[in-house]
Amino acid sequence: MATNLNSHIWEPWMFRAINLASLAEGQTSPNPLVGAVILDEKNRLVGEGFHLRSGEPHAEIGAIEQAGSLAKGGTLLVNLEPCCHRGKTPPCTDAILRSGIKRVVVAIQDPDQRVSGKGIAFLKESGIEVVTGILEKEAAFLNRAFIFRNRTGRPWGTLKWAMSFDGRIGLSNGKSKWISGEKSRKRVHSLRAKNDAVIVGGGTVRSDNPLLTTRGIADIEPLRVVCSSTLDLPKEAQLWNTELAKTLIFYGPESDARCLENLPSGPERLCLEENTPIKVMEALAQRGCNQVLWECGSSLATKAIQQNCVQELSLFLSPKLLGGVSAMTPLADFGFSSMEQVFKLKEVSSNKSGEDFVLNMLFDNYG
Amino acid sequence: MATNLNSHIWEPWMFRAINLASLAEGQTSPNPLVGAVILDEKNRLVGEGFHLRSGEPHAEIGAIEQAGSLAKGGTLLVNLEPCCHRGKTPPCTDAILRSGIKRVVVAIQDPDQRVSGKGIAFLKESGIEVVTGILEKEAAFLNRAFIFRNRTGRPWGTLKWAMSFDGRIGLSNGKSKWISGEKSRKRVHSLRAKNDAVIVGGGTVRSDNPLLTTRGIADIEPLRVVCSSTLDLPKEAQLWNTELAKTLIFYGPESDARCLENLPSGPERLCLEENTPIKVMEALAQRGCNQVLWECGSSLATKAIQQNCVQELSLFLSPKLLGGVSAMTPLADFGFSSMEQVFKLKEVSSNKSGEDFVLNMLFDNYG
Repeated sequence: MATNLNSHIWEPWMFRAINLASLAEGQTSPNPLVGAVILDEKNRLVGEGFHLRSGEPHAEIGAIEQAGSLAKGGTLLVNLEPCCHRGKTPPCTDAILRSGIKRVVVAIQDPDQRVSGKGIAFLKESGIEVVTGILEKEAAFLNRAFIFRNRTGRPWGTLKWAMSFDGRIGLSNGKSKWISGEKSRKRVHSLRAKNDAVIVGGGTVRSDNPLLTTRGIADIEPLRVVCSSTLDLPKEAQLWNTELAKTLIFYGPESDARCLENLPSGPERLCLEENTPIKVMEALAQRGCNQVLWECGSSLATKAIQQNCVQELSLFLSPKLLGGVSAMTPLADFGFSSMEQVFKLKEVSSNKSGEDFVLNMLFDNYG
Repeated sequence: MATNLNSHIWEPWMFRAINLASLAEGQTSPNPLVGAVILDEKNRLVGEGFHLRSGEPHAEIGAIEQAGSLAKGGTLLVNLEPCCHRGKTPPCTDAILRSGIKRVVVAIQDPDQRVSGKGIAFLKESGIEVVTGILEKEAAFLNRAFIFRNRTGRPWGTLKWAMSFDGRIGLSNGKSKWISGEKSRKRVHSLRAKNDAVIVGGGTVRSDNPLLTTRGIADIEPLRVVCSSTLDLPKEAQLWNTELAKTLIFYGPESDARCLENLPSGPERLCLEENTPIKVMEALAQRGCNQVLWECGSSLATKAIQQNCVQELSLFLSPKLLGGVSAMTPLADFGFSSMEQVFKLKEVSSNKSGEDFVLNMLFDNYG
């Protein structure tokens, strides 16, 4: 997109739109995160809004309603190109025209094939000045999951693990409660709230019997997903109680039919063409997931990375030493024989969480 | 020690004394790090100094010489109790009396049995006002190695390793060059310069053939120590060239006598009662080492931790994923069966070094 010489005028307001958009992180799928700001003729703030959830009004509509007649002759700033198609709600471009807004400032084009430049073209054709490319990088990062799903047909994957300073995710006897501190465990609940689904393998269900909820942080709990190749699952498990949150069990055609009969009745079950991370991700994208969290053991995590189903890593590093030659490590073998082959990560953020370090990283190949 | 109601007057100057002292980090052994500041009667800075190296004048002497007659009626601030015994240089207490200084402000008592309160007592008996306990904690941390050696008869041990984000210190095929980035490798040279000796096992000599110098950062290169239980050492190795730095090979009584004959001629060799980390540390303390750096593999590192020969950890965490079920990990087994038993670490500092994270930690049991 073209850059704008006057971009410094719009950047602070676009930051505001991006911040508004981010308030709904993890809640808008399959829709993107969108925030909108309206300035009057003299560039005074007269309206703002953000998209809360699929089916709810788009960000632009909330801002236009708040601005009312003050929008006339003003400027709309929005982090994603306004839509020009009728989905669950009417096209935003119509509302913009009706409001009398004379200028629309957009950070990035909508990657959705139904929009993808058509919204901007429509506004221009209707005589509205359109400025594009303001805080493009920041806006693309905010909606990295939505953009990634539109491009690949798979949700953005984040892999999370908690590890000691000597690289262990459990003791030799399998015990792993708790490596990270209380604050970090609460932070994991927030991380789940920013995702549409949380994935574990059958092994994690058998050994840890996790609950995998946000403990009420999210209005809608993310879907809890179990990938089981053997279907050798326990009769009783916290995940089988679907009052708190939904559970979905994925399995492959090679699974034991007898095990299928013994599956608990609460969770939904779905047979995939192949029980692989990539097929799991495709199925989750079809269900509207933009971003999912892998909370699985080393074997499934390794396969997920190998199949390009992990774009981001959230490492909780706890200041402990566990030791143990046979103690659990976060990843299995990639077959690397030289240091040139290994995966390289880029820092997104690094923070403390109590005594733990939380390091958020992007895979080099995410883009 | 007694706290002082007027401590806020002296703290900024004591910080200065501590900062001066730290300039000689790693260079003063077996002596402590000492900095001194002299203020005149009106509390104006008139002299300062620090101890550069064993055999060179003590910090107080440099400061007194610089202040000259302006010291009369003034105040001396020093992070460690002035000595009252004749070592390689005359007692500082005599010089203080001669200078006409009327007040001495001390952070901590000297743990050396030859001083240990006697210096302070002598000054008080001589009619000098003595204020103690100013920035006690900071001064004790600065000289933690000197204090630890005086208390235990062993040098302060720092263990260093470079690790990937998935807890590996090498690939399955043993390759480990390089896990950390170039900046971190330079930082390791500085870390060596702050230590009196650098220790590796025979395995590291065989597999990595390291040089283990500071690359000229330190005026006197730290002693390079090889702990070999088998004495199965390569004929050619960088460590056998002792022009750049001295090398010392420790071995135990059970070593193969034939291997002894094949040892290179450059390095010194020393047979210990037992070839254990604790005996190695005792021998290094006797040679005047206050602080040493463990740069060894997982087996020796684990033994060193178990024998309380490691008080500090310097972790270089590199944003890479190596994988590998059999890939090298930093530590071997401690036999822990519950999370209550594991070693807990306390943060000293966390920094970035290029793309790597450098996390400096204290063992909980160091004190």
